[in-house]
Amino acid sequence: MRIIAVVGAGAATPKEERLAEKVGRGLAEAGAILICGGRGGVMAAACRGAREAHGITVGILPGTDAREANPWVSIPLATGLGEARNAVIASAAQAVIAIGGEWGTLSEIALARKMGRPVIGLETWQLQRGGQPVQGICYTDSPEEAVRWAITLQQTVGEGQSCGS
Amino acid sequence: MRIIAVVGAGAATPKEERLAEKVGRGLAEAGAILICGGRGGVMAAACRGAREAHGITVGILPGTDAREANPWVSIPLATGLGEARNAVIASAAQAVIAIGGEWGTLSEIALARKMGRPVIGLETWQLQRGGQPVQGICYTDSPEEAVRWAITLQQTVGEGQSCGS
Amino acid sequence: MRIIAVVGAGAATPKEERLAEKVGRGLAEAGAILICGGRGGVMAAACRGAREAHGITVGILPGTDAREANPWVSIPLATGLGEARNAVIASAAQAVIAIGGEWGTLSEIALARKMGRPVIGLETWQLQRGGQPVQGICYTDSPEEAVRWAITLQQTVGEGQSCGS
Amino acid sequence: MRIIAVVGAGAATPKEERLAEKVGRGLAEAGAILICGGRGGVMAAACRGAREAHGITVGILPGTDAREANPWVSIPLATGLGEARNAVIASAAQAVIAIGGEWGTLSEIALARKMGRPVIGLETWQLQRGGQPVQGICYTDSPEEAVRWAITLQQTVGEGQSCGS
Repeated sequence: MRIIAVVGAGAATPKEERLAEKVGRGLAEAGAILICGGRGGVMAAACRGAREAHGITVGILPGTDAREANPWVSIPLATGLGEARNAVIASAAQAVIAIGGEWGTLSEIALARKMGRPVIGLETWQLQRGGQPVQGICYTDSPEEAVRWAITLQQTVGEGQSCGS
Repeated sequence: MRIIAVVGAGAATPKEERLAEKVGRGLAEAGAILICGGRGGVMAAACRGAREAHGITVGILPGTDAREANPWVSIPLATGLGEARNAVIASAAQAVIAIGGEWGTLSEIALARKMGRPVIGLETWQLQRGGQPVQGICYTDSPEEAVRWAITLQQTVGEGQSCGS
Repeated sequence: MRIIAVVGAGAATPKEERLAEKVGRGLAEAGAILICGGRGGVMAAACRGAREAHGITVGILPGTDAREANPWVSIPLATGLGEARNAVIASAAQAVIAIGGEWGTLSEIALARKMGRPVIGLETWQLQRGGQPVQGICYTDSPEEAVRWAITLQQTVGEGQSCGS
Repeated sequence: MRIIAVVGAGAATPKEERLAEKVGRGLAEAGAILICGGRGGVMAAACRGAREAHGITVGILPGTDAREANPWVSIPLATGLGEARNAVIASAAQAVIAIGGEWGTLSEIALARKMGRPVIGLETWQLQRGGQPVQGICYTDSPEEAVRWAITLQQTVGEGQSCGS
């Protein structure tokens, strides 16, 4: 069973939410379990898309009350860990799809890469070191391609991997 | 949706495993999601029982590799948190059923009580302070009663609560 | 450098606070660093004792604001982990001294034993399995003996170890 | 008492190590406690600088063995949390100085910004969204300026803050 994280800000643009909903739907249709932070914005849109396609959605919440989850989370897990829950999301996923996003999203991208999980980016952070783009994130504009990459990329990948196949 | 934790040692007696399997089966039949540490012994037996009754089982693993989960975990979450994952199990559950158990199980009982979650004990730790038994754990010999209490007890309970109903 | 945890409830009796203050003083005089949950009651009394003897005290706080620490914490670390910070205290200590205590204290005792750390008990929880006392906690009435054991017991101990020497 | 984190990769360039050593020394001279991940590279160099100026250094280690710390850590805390320890570093610091760095460093930058902690960058990640640089990190080439900013910037800052003063 494939477990894929969708990460993005609680305050998302309409375009980001449309992308997230398509990604969620695609993951469910591919038989993957969707894991996310369980709150609003990108997270809620992705869960909504997944549930419309009869998928399972897991919300890794920062607080201690499962009722903080958005209505499309089927398994709300109130971790009580605060922002450290972002490390749990990155660790538990076999691949991460980042959509838009603020600082919390960036932390999930970075933690996932630190742990060797593939990261696919849709309209998200661009990263540079010494004026050069950094390798290690697979960028695309297409939610369908994002889903395909998330499903097929191997869990432990090197910096030089090819995104598509 | 009700989320109930089953906690107990990875090295369990045959009797403890029989109890755990009945508890897992009962939780699934009651429509609850079973959450546990995802490893062997009591955890594996409870998951096996739940899956036989077509339930969903979530394994909150200490390490970073989902393949550490027992074969009856339907959603393995490799947290990477080590023993701190016990706090996640206690926090994410609406009630905890403890069966047998060693030190890790005791930590889950204590964390659950600290967080106000009801704890039901089957053949598990007996606790005293100043030579007196401590209130706050609902003991029973019956896996059916354990399931019934776990389903019906409210999430936030005081020390003086009544176990049954 | 020896790092010793003192664990106990935020709401302590005067006797427990006197014991904690003596333990804190003794640890500082022995050159150990005191680690604790950083809050009131037993934690504050132990820190006060240590600081009076010019020791270093580390407070592993559950929240995100260092100002939650008691005034005798020299290094307040606001972890933001909630109750999962108890696992950090147990892991970071080379031995644990438990004084009185409620559920949070019991979780720290259990996590420390799970991790193989020696636990010394002063007026704290008594534990039984199957009607028999459980091995693995060194009980004493003397704060001086508690300090001596905490300083001398090795970090990784088996269940059958002898407490004193 | 001011607690400042220095974050950076375990595999650092000689230039990054020189910067880190100067930052560590400066923090100690300013009376701040240095907190870091406790390992090699930037972390070791910063601790070495701080200890040469008689400062206190706290190492928040990912594993369960304090002996993983570099020799210049005065208080090694073996959290057992794995990569989630990065969230503890960000949360416990009043400001973060990032030097060079790989994915783990980026996660600490992002978590610190998410938590409202000021971040000062020396030869570290450059971040963009939609082709535009992102506000919220104070870049400098000077270790002295980095220390001055870390000491003076307030803990809770908005995106539009001015770095220097």
